[in-house]
Amino acid sequence: MPAEPVDLSSTSAAATAAAFDDPLYRTGVIELLGVLAYGELTAFERLAEDSKLAPGMRDKAAISAMASAEFGHFQALHDGLVELGQDPFEAMEPFHETYERFHARTAPRDWLEGLVKAYVGDGLAADFYREVAAFLDQGTRALILETLGETGHSEFVVGRVREAIAEDPRVGGRLALWGRRLVGEALSQAQGIAAEHDGLTTVLVGGADRPGMDLAGIGRMFARLTENHASRMAKLGLAS
Amino acid sequence: MPAEPVDLSSTSAAATAAAFDDPLYRTGVIELLGVLAYGELTAFERLAEDSKLAPGMRDKAAISAMASAEFGHFQALHDGLVELGQDPFEAMEPFHETYERFHARTAPRDWLEGLVKAYVGDGLAADFYREVAAFLDQGTRALILETLGETGHSEFVVGRVREAIAEDPRVGGRLALWGRRLVGEALSQAQGIAAEHDGLTTVLVGGADRPGMDLAGIGRMFARLTENHASRMAKLGLAS
Repeated sequence: MPAEPVDLSSTSAAATAAAFDDPLYRTGVIELLGVLAYGELTAFERLAEDSKLAPGMRDKAAISAMASAEFGHFQALHDGLVELGQDPFEAMEPFHETYERFHARTAPRDWLEGLVKAYVGDGLAADFYREVAAFLDQGTRALILETLGETGHSEFVVGRVREAIAEDPRVGGRLALWGRRLVGEALSQAQGIAAEHDGLTTVLVGGADRPGMDLAGIGRMFARLTENHASRMAKLGLAS
Repeated sequence: MPAEPVDLSSTSAAATAAAFDDPLYRTGVIELLGVLAYGELTAFERLAEDSKLAPGMRDKAAISAMASAEFGHFQALHDGLVELGQDPFEAMEPFHETYERFHARTAPRDWLEGLVKAYVGDGLAADFYREVAAFLDQGTRALILETLGETGHSEFVVGRVREAIAEDPRVGGRLALWGRRLVGEALSQAQGIAAEHDGLTTVLVGGADRPGMDLAGIGRMFARLTENHASRMAKLGLAS
């Protein structure tokens, strides 16, 4: 008879329960899942909208696959909030204006701008998910990392953007500016959210008996996010 | 030691290969998967578009879940065509105009019309999938039935439409007319497709050595489709 395996799930459940004893931590996790869920649902909407600009059925199907994957992410975060006994839509509501503002300021004017936004946004979101996961209780971390599981949908963008630049090099200059504007708006909206939501910030910076990033750590996180953004732009053939 | 199980998969693979020896059958299956794939992709698009009319985030998420499920159906049919060595987008292309015409003639004017179209269209499509599956080789049948696997996303429509009629009974009359128009347009477009695509029709009516429906059988199928449509309308609280 094999040795009794350690029941990791109950250990993790106990640790998760302990983390949630801190009401500010609980608030922060709900705010975090709420802001991510809202982001995924609007990403679905915007990508579905952008699919209308697709020059053909193949591209339409490829961008729709991204939209559909974002909806899957939304669903996972939604269900995670329900498991915490939280109404997902109430948790999402406070972030309505921020996303409206972000998307109003970054509405793509054509198919290529839509592609770059999809690629840059998807990558930045995935990086942020991975960064923030490190400071979460095991249950929430697993949810965040599972949500990220389904990836690779945006890889078709690389070929499309590079082809467009090869056809007309001026496109590269315009899209490089566009990429800078996107990341600038994203970071500016993120700072606004952090300033208004103490719980969410506490999840990142830690509490009395919970580790987190200090200010220097947050600075390094932003440095990593912008470095990865630059690599993605380079992969598209764009200066950042 | 248990008895060796019969390898159903290889039996089925052999039967599927035999069915595809008939070139008209092969053409018909490709046309069938093409018309269904196009339908699912446009269903995704239209539902994502209708989500903009949603009166709140909950409804937006519910209709987006339907859209996302339709995209999953598209993906399954797309992959099935690839497995047959067929370019999915070439197989879909001949049905472009029919779907454009159908959706142009049945563009919902408001959220409720969108909901009824989603519910009626989803149900009619599922019924048609089940009807047609009976006359297909085992491999294609499995694909069609698997594609249908994920259902139940449209059930929220029942509550929404009944609430709206309770608030204003005149809504019931308007939506009943709308439901009639939808099914009329759908059947008319389906007849057009059947008339133009011999292979597709052959899949339904059978070949020299393959069973299928005779004309009376096709008549009975249409009777079943319209009966089920009437039950769905009744479930919504609408006359058909």
